[in-house]
Amino acid sequence: MGVMRIGRAELRVMDMEKAVDYYTRVIGLEETGRRDGRVYLKAWDEYDHHSLILQEADSPGMDHCAFKVETLEDLARYEKKIEHFGLTLKRVSNRSRLGEGEAIRFELPTGHQVELFHEIDYVGKIMGLENPHPWPDNLRGIAPHRLDHVLLTGDDVDSTTRFFIEALGFHQSEKIMSVDGEVTIGSFLFTNNGKPHEIAFIKGPDKKLHHAAFFVDNWYDVLKGADILSKNNVPVEVTPTRHGITRGLTTYFFDPSGNRNEAFASGYITYPDFKTITWTEDKIGQGIFYHRREMLESFGRALT
Amino acid sequence: MGVMRIGRAELRVMDMEKAVDYYTRVIGLEETGRRDGRVYLKAWDEYDHHSLILQEADSPGMDHCAFKVETLEDLARYEKKIEHFGLTLKRVSNRSRLGEGEAIRFELPTGHQVELFHEIDYVGKIMGLENPHPWPDNLRGIAPHRLDHVLLTGDDVDSTTRFFIEALGFHQSEKIMSVDGEVTIGSFLFTNNGKPHEIAFIKGPDKKLHHAAFFVDNWYDVLKGADILSKNNVPVEVTPTRHGITRGLTTYFFDPSGNRNEAFASGYITYPDFKTITWTEDKIGQGIFYHRREMLESFGRALT
Amino acid sequence: MGVMRIGRAELRVMDMEKAVDYYTRVIGLEETGRRDGRVYLKAWDEYDHHSLILQEADSPGMDHCAFKVETLEDLARYEKKIEHFGLTLKRVSNRSRLGEGEAIRFELPTGHQVELFHEIDYVGKIMGLENPHPWPDNLRGIAPHRLDHVLLTGDDVDSTTRFFIEALGFHQSEKIMSVDGEVTIGSFLFTNNGKPHEIAFIKGPDKKLHHAAFFVDNWYDVLKGADILSKNNVPVEVTPTRHGITRGLTTYFFDPSGNRNEAFASGYITYPDFKTITWTEDKIGQGIFYHRREMLESFGRALT
Amino acid sequence: MGVMRIGRAELRVMDMEKAVDYYTRVIGLEETGRRDGRVYLKAWDEYDHHSLILQEADSPGMDHCAFKVETLEDLARYEKKIEHFGLTLKRVSNRSRLGEGEAIRFELPTGHQVELFHEIDYVGKIMGLENPHPWPDNLRGIAPHRLDHVLLTGDDVDSTTRFFIEALGFHQSEKIMSVDGEVTIGSFLFTNNGKPHEIAFIKGPDKKLHHAAFFVDNWYDVLKGADILSKNNVPVEVTPTRHGITRGLTTYFFDPSGNRNEAFASGYITYPDFKTITWTEDKIGQGIFYHRREMLESFGRALT
Repeated sequence: MGVMRIGRAELRVMDMEKAVDYYTRVIGLEETGRRDGRVYLKAWDEYDHHSLILQEADSPGMDHCAFKVETLEDLARYEKKIEHFGLTLKRVSNRSRLGEGEAIRFELPTGHQVELFHEIDYVGKIMGLENPHPWPDNLRGIAPHRLDHVLLTGDDVDSTTRFFIEALGFHQSEKIMSVDGEVTIGSFLFTNNGKPHEIAFIKGPDKKLHHAAFFVDNWYDVLKGADILSKNNVPVEVTPTRHGITRGLTTYFFDPSGNRNEAFASGYITYPDFKTITWTEDKIGQGIFYHRREMLESFGRALT
Repeated sequence: MGVMRIGRAELRVMDMEKAVDYYTRVIGLEETGRRDGRVYLKAWDEYDHHSLILQEADSPGMDHCAFKVETLEDLARYEKKIEHFGLTLKRVSNRSRLGEGEAIRFELPTGHQVELFHEIDYVGKIMGLENPHPWPDNLRGIAPHRLDHVLLTGDDVDSTTRFFIEALGFHQSEKIMSVDGEVTIGSFLFTNNGKPHEIAFIKGPDKKLHHAAFFVDNWYDVLKGADILSKNNVPVEVTPTRHGITRGLTTYFFDPSGNRNEAFASGYITYPDFKTITWTEDKIGQGIFYHRREMLESFGRALT
Repeated sequence: MGVMRIGRAELRVMDMEKAVDYYTRVIGLEETGRRDGRVYLKAWDEYDHHSLILQEADSPGMDHCAFKVETLEDLARYEKKIEHFGLTLKRVSNRSRLGEGEAIRFELPTGHQVELFHEIDYVGKIMGLENPHPWPDNLRGIAPHRLDHVLLTGDDVDSTTRFFIEALGFHQSEKIMSVDGEVTIGSFLFTNNGKPHEIAFIKGPDKKLHHAAFFVDNWYDVLKGADILSKNNVPVEVTPTRHGITRGLTTYFFDPSGNRNEAFASGYITYPDFKTITWTEDKIGQGIFYHRREMLESFGRALT
Repeated sequence: MGVMRIGRAELRVMDMEKAVDYYTRVIGLEETGRRDGRVYLKAWDEYDHHSLILQEADSPGMDHCAFKVETLEDLARYEKKIEHFGLTLKRVSNRSRLGEGEAIRFELPTGHQVELFHEIDYVGKIMGLENPHPWPDNLRGIAPHRLDHVLLTGDDVDSTTRFFIEALGFHQSEKIMSVDGEVTIGSFLFTNNGKPHEIAFIKGPDKKLHHAAFFVDNWYDVLKGADILSKNNVPVEVTPTRHGITRGLTTYFFDPSGNRNEAFASGYITYPDFKTITWTEDKIGQGIFYHRREMLESFGRALT
């Protein structure tokens, strides 16, 4: 199968204490460890040791994101494909991170650091593997099921798309094109797990994070999430709505360092034979905010 | 990737007119063609020519089900694996069915006929591929997104499970075991599309269909579905509830010939590294009907 | 206006510790006081001192229920109407119960004890009256908004209905009649607060409680409620479904003493000019369980 | 009881054909009659002949709104109270409107025309009064249950509030006050039917309509409504969110003439002893748009 899913994002935060409070109490992730000044977190419905790493830094943003591959052989196989595509690549040695084995690291044409890894400690879910209840007691905050996807900005959306398709076996679910069809403004990419996107790119400054998204089950959970954000005075940029792109249900907000987060639900299922949907730039408002049908100035501008 | 999804089920119905009325007006599928006494149908969110075929017959049941594979090469590759596993196999020639290319057909250890195919006409969704709306106007009935899975009964659940894993690359999300751990009572199998099950088997008489399930988006759609069933006087066997197994939300009912249908929503996401959940037989009630927590006599008995 | 709402039910429980644990941790009520061996509770969205009183006893059931009237004058006015109707009545003196002023008490034709009261201590909601959040933090369990209604059984449903209409100004939203129209099998009564029923009666043994219902906001909260009941191993008699009568969404279950509870959501709005809906006994299954469309044996039998 | 509910709003529209298409196909009301250039409409869950009247005019806005009282005696009683309060009043004769008996008409301190009426033809619901289904087949568009409330603007919010409380027996659920507590900026008024508001006033120009609201059952119906608006290219001003005030779930949009509409769901229950909630002007953003927490410029400005 190859790439199974986005396995983690490492975010830069400017005040670790505030960040941990936000990601555990408001988002509702569970802290699974600390080392080297980094805090490791997972969602209740994930079984790997972590899916989010917080790193204290002078500015916000995404240090890197990483995809988990099915086997160690995949790692070797992708190594060749990535080098063949022409990206420079380095090995990250075993246990460089808490709970993880070795990884390979490379830089996208958009300047983002991405890793592939296979080994990570299995922590499991609170409900266990025998006669489990559907959800654990004592959930806190928004309590998403998982890290869902990241959306990044960069100049060379086309090469980056081509890289994910050719080297990593991704497929493109949707793209946003200039009206003349010449310029790719957005590209949404999925791997073989049925989700509408695992990672996506919007034309913009290189190396920037647009948002990291967490999955919630349904439209009522999006509402509960937005309520919790207001109760906790978290800045909400986009109140609950639907995306035209992916059909997903969504709300956007910012962590204490200004990294944009999303609570995302629903969306269609994808398979390798899913035909790419095209949005033309004149309909980008409807594509991104299906109800509002116009872009939000901050949404294109606030990047970390 | 190999097997992408369940591509169709062909059901035997005893009164074609009633069956078509039920599957189009109550379930809300769209008729896409007729040939050789068979009626072909698809759901609004599917893009292949059909996912359900109705065949008039003297008794209800499932003629066969079929899985769509990603490439023609997959078909050849699986042919070898299936023969190597020891199942007899035959080729179904191109255009034996309306809108379909060639297929391979084999019999499971449980006696069910299963096919793999790759070629099928692309019909698309009403919303199209450019700036699409999230759902079409004029939906009717329960209006599921897709055929979701089938559950079959048979004696040799273990060999059948092994076949799907070894020959077809499936994984097992859940199993039901006798309390002593000796006998496999149920087996739930998924392929690489994130769904909790694509096909499942329960110990029972060979060659029988337990149910064919259609996917709806959420718990309110399960309610709307159950309301529509009552309005149309359709026999509802299991009113809206949650499964322990898959965590899915569900209601069960019967088509006019007595084939059991399910409206199924939600459920967790799967990946190849998902560890199999085990239910012990003493908790089977909770596993199947999480709220009722006891088996329903008809649920084990009514098979077609 | 007169009768504003059901103000409380006093239930008999056989093990106070278990009962308090259930009503606070599983149902999610808040304990507001104890006196004379009784425990007083309220829901988070109620502002009066209590809506549920638990009394330890040798057998389960409802000691009495009580309606809150708008003014002290209403109390005097209803006193006359009740005596004029022919029921014997007594005054309950001020502070006989924790947090309450005086009340009037009378016995229905069905043998149930009912009270009217006006004065009760104002406790308020955690969110307060200035710039309140929509719901408080730290909700537990099913967390209903309020005590919603009680359903009682008795022989003389007609006189009891007439009493509520003529003496207390209620209206009848629905009734269940024998097919020949001669016998009233069920009667659903509302007062001027928009709810589909405040109290209801089903023909059966006198003095018995069929159920006490708590209001939850929506169908997802009914699901959450049913999940919580299973997690806590509470006996669930009726899994989530819709009533034909009132259109409400519902699940039924039992407290540790065997008193039936309901989590009830939705339902239509009523006004004084709402015309009574009639269910004929041959459709009683559909009226009570809209999806199942047949009565459940235990539902008519288990009374406390 | 007196005032039972808002019985109708008569809106001015500039293109009757477009307006009827919008209110029947997009909103999903049913046309019940035409006379004198006016079109009469009702929602599927209302039983009176109409709740909305469309009147062709050169400018949009609300001609008047009217409340239905329980009895003819109420009409005479309110007549005296209204005159005693000091408002001039006139009788509207029987059958001045299609399907209606006589009414009394008066002008609020804010300049709005308001009527009280009792007699109106009973049309009923499609489901009927015997063994009814919970909802009719063939619903179209947003398909609200009813006209829910209107919000008007005017200068003298205090006198208008006092009028509704003293003359018409309303209660105040919420108010918005300037931070110094001197000026009433908003006033939300309910009658005895459990709803959080039947009519409301915001300080602003006299005689203006801010919005007319239709009730939908739940948060998923708000989403479906917003989707339908986008599909039909209706301008959506406020995408799905929660109000702090009333806790209601909402989306705002405009009819083809620019009259603002709302799809409103949920909200708390009220009784006469509900204590008024106070919002301070510094929190008005949170009060109106609980998730966004800031006012929307157009929301205060676009009036008809």
